[in-house]
Amino acid sequence: MELWYTENYTDTVKFSIKVKEQLYTKTSQFQQIDVFDTYEFGKLLTIDGLVMITEKDEFIYHDMITHVPMATNPNIKSVLVIGGGDGGTVRELTRYKTIEKIDMVEIDKVVVDASREHFQITACKLDDERVSLYFEDGIKFVEGKENIYDLIIVDSTDPIGPGEGLFTTEFYRNCYKALTEEGILVNQNESPYYEADAKEMIRASKKIKNIFPIAEVYQAHIPTYPSGHWLFGFASKKLHPVKDLDAQKWNDLGLKTKYYNTDLHVGAFALPNYVKEMIETGAF
Amino acid sequence: MELWYTENYTDTVKFSIKVKEQLYTKTSQFQQIDVFDTYEFGKLLTIDGLVMITEKDEFIYHDMITHVPMATNPNIKSVLVIGGGDGGTVRELTRYKTIEKIDMVEIDKVVVDASREHFQITACKLDDERVSLYFEDGIKFVEGKENIYDLIIVDSTDPIGPGEGLFTTEFYRNCYKALTEEGILVNQNESPYYEADAKEMIRASKKIKNIFPIAEVYQAHIPTYPSGHWLFGFASKKLHPVKDLDAQKWNDLGLKTKYYNTDLHVGAFALPNYVKEMIETGAF
Repeated sequence: MELWYTENYTDTVKFSIKVKEQLYTKTSQFQQIDVFDTYEFGKLLTIDGLVMITEKDEFIYHDMITHVPMATNPNIKSVLVIGGGDGGTVRELTRYKTIEKIDMVEIDKVVVDASREHFQITACKLDDERVSLYFEDGIKFVEGKENIYDLIIVDSTDPIGPGEGLFTTEFYRNCYKALTEEGILVNQNESPYYEADAKEMIRASKKIKNIFPIAEVYQAHIPTYPSGHWLFGFASKKLHPVKDLDAQKWNDLGLKTKYYNTDLHVGAFALPNYVKEMIETGAF
Repeated sequence: MELWYTENYTDTVKFSIKVKEQLYTKTSQFQQIDVFDTYEFGKLLTIDGLVMITEKDEFIYHDMITHVPMATNPNIKSVLVIGGGDGGTVRELTRYKTIEKIDMVEIDKVVVDASREHFQITACKLDDERVSLYFEDGIKFVEGKENIYDLIIVDSTDPIGPGEGLFTTEFYRNCYKALTEEGILVNQNESPYYEADAKEMIRASKKIKNIFPIAEVYQAHIPTYPSGHWLFGFASKKLHPVKDLDAQKWNDLGLKTKYYNTDLHVGAFALPNYVKEMIETGAF
């Protein structure tokens, strides 16, 4: 018997991974969570049949969603993570001694439970004393909050299901208010390559641009996400992710990273022309 | 009936593309050449069951294999292309009025014939008057040549079958000799992500480093190649691809490109730590 996990990138494009065994499956109030052991990628966490993280390359996503804002502003002390139930984003954040407080708001406790059981590689710092876990709706959590967080990271699923509200103008506006004077908002922002993903990215970028004075998009090579070309949004009240980067200061911290470095930080904001054009014109 | 083209990235990872119809198949003296019409990627050219180019994203590969060396040295006049039977590399080169002579050496005439018939998008400039086509073995072609080419582009298949000899020390040494004083060698250099590909990349990089004083690796997002994270080798006698880039000069040419721009040129050389480490230590 052969067991294969297959993700449909479009109706006519599929990515398939041979599975040793299924380790976990549960349908929560919000979504279906599965964990597989695979030959190539080690353990694989999926939500509603989409790859969230794999042991082999989770470091790429988590490096890029945390170290880019942290290097842009090394004075960040208070962080809100929305989503990120696997814990990888929190793990990277806890490496900064300067961070005093991390609120993590994950709507689905089952994702955290599954990760604690099968993904210690990412969930290992969820009990750090600076971390407060809230199993709540992130959209409601930010409502009414003012001037509290130096950084908000939206580590969400795709904009379908429970993740949908995390891609709305109202949510971004509430994030703006919840941020301090030099606040930064980072969000995972889909791929520019397949039409449905790209259109979500374009929509999200447009909304963010209308609210934040600085709104940029950056990219990473994540082989287990559709197309392998993945984007993140960087929105900010004051600091520019390239012009205000103090590379020396970040390098002096001596953090070892497998993907991120400060040259790559700058390079990640140099988008291909076709992606820049998409964002500027709003057309795929 | 459903027709799917499937490429095995490893024994346990597959990428599948739904096909409208097969347009062409021929087994030449060297390899099997197929052309498919697909829903997502338009036409698809494969050699021995591996994606060479698709209509949807060939521009990424061809932009990165030509404009990076051309922007580094805008005085390039004489170019040798080895492989590249689809014509896309030659198409991009012919956009430079300053190039006087392009020799293209493709071992397999069948690839050119198939491309002329089905890939006018890439083959459209093969009859440019500056282009000389040689259906010969590129390895033998460079033997004994001295101080002739300002740029050699190795636009090869993977290092199995007829492409194998294009990844040897002897071949790189002959390229060095065939190059002029400021000569540049660019080669497609596999992916860093899957073990077999990465090991080829490491081997090739090491050999090139032993011969050329400047040897760098750069990357691009090519969604239809394994992992989507693709590398190119840049080797040079004198010019450094980042330090010697005159971005203004290239931008003054006014060439429209869908992927390449001079910021991205610099960013492409900012490799992730795990890739840098692989190249430095020689270990996957």
